[in-house]
Amino acid sequence: MRIELLSIFPDFFAGPLDEGIIRRARQAGILEIGIRSSRDHAEGPHRMTDDRPYGGGEGMVMKPEPLAACVRACLAYGLENEARRVVLMSPRGGVFSQAKAREYAGLDRLVLVCGRYEGVDERFCERYVDEECSIGDYVLSGGELAALVITDAVCRLLPGALGCADSAARDSFSRSLLKHGQYTRPPVFEGLEVPEV
Amino acid sequence: MRIELLSIFPDFFAGPLDEGIIRRARQAGILEIGIRSSRDHAEGPHRMTDDRPYGGGEGMVMKPEPLAACVRACLAYGLENEARRVVLMSPRGGVFSQAKAREYAGLDRLVLVCGRYEGVDERFCERYVDEECSIGDYVLSGGELAALVITDAVCRLLPGALGCADSAARDSFSRSLLKHGQYTRPPVFEGLEVPEV
Repeated sequence: MRIELLSIFPDFFAGPLDEGIIRRARQAGILEIGIRSSRDHAEGPHRMTDDRPYGGGEGMVMKPEPLAACVRACLAYGLENEARRVVLMSPRGGVFSQAKAREYAGLDRLVLVCGRYEGVDERFCERYVDEECSIGDYVLSGGELAALVITDAVCRLLPGALGCADSAARDSFSRSLLKHGQYTRPPVFEGLEVPEV
Repeated sequence: MRIELLSIFPDFFAGPLDEGIIRRARQAGILEIGIRSSRDHAEGPHRMTDDRPYGGGEGMVMKPEPLAACVRACLAYGLENEARRVVLMSPRGGVFSQAKAREYAGLDRLVLVCGRYEGVDERFCERYVDEECSIGDYVLSGGELAALVITDAVCRLLPGALGCADSAARDSFSRSLLKHGQYTRPPVFEGLEVPEV
């Protein structure tokens, strides 16, 4: 599978994509990651990716053309009948869930568009975006962290990504913790003993 | 305000903490960030931070002593009557929200403990953790991305962190987008015109 991350902050992703399960999945060729900046597709001497909103108001809106050119570049190398989805990280989107992660994990190519500022020009969404997605009910500075959350959740579900074949099915990080507390050595920690099974 | 991030992957945070609003808030002295690895507090030649679970089962559990020593180190430099909270990133915690972000933004010191593997020893939670927090209904590889989401949401609420004083109150990134689409130049993009106001 290939995940494309579109952002005007390409350096944002360096640490998170180079640790743990994502790093190993990339090394094993299970997951390819592409990082693209719409700034590379912006015109003019300053390569502006945002501009003032029509109708006034504060803040800036991301211009449609650089984003559109960047998405086209992402999709240019794909196979013709591959399963692909262009998703805009957006507070008005449906909330991401484990079911959505499973859906995305079945795609060949997932393009995650990270917005910044007040939002992105609506016409870009109309023409290029298949769906919008939020990771929760809180205000973030942009879509980059949301895109990383989706990348991590999807990566874990790709065949071979986890060391233990059935770990994803067990949803280990969540289910065992939700069920009961975990204990390891030492038998006594600060006067607290491991309880009887 | 000071946020301490506890993780066995300290390099994870490099990109996200060095961009945008968090970077500017750190430069302006509005937000201090500390990154600590519990591995630095682990003993033995291999500095192991995890071990097998009591009672069998797959996966590994984070040992209590290195985490405890790391939290103590975080809190050692704080003022005596500062408002502080130790929060474990955990799928069994309450789901993070904008209301919780406002609550955390009122603290002097927030310690975010990032779990990995199957979970952390329950006795560490009992002794050192004030509350557990999840960012949503999906399975992640660890608490690092959750801690970054919380750091971003809280940082935006600190006085002076945003360029425009009232931006946080307007919750610009979410509310305007939820209300209606945004448009900027050009007036016609791929045949689509900006609608009349």
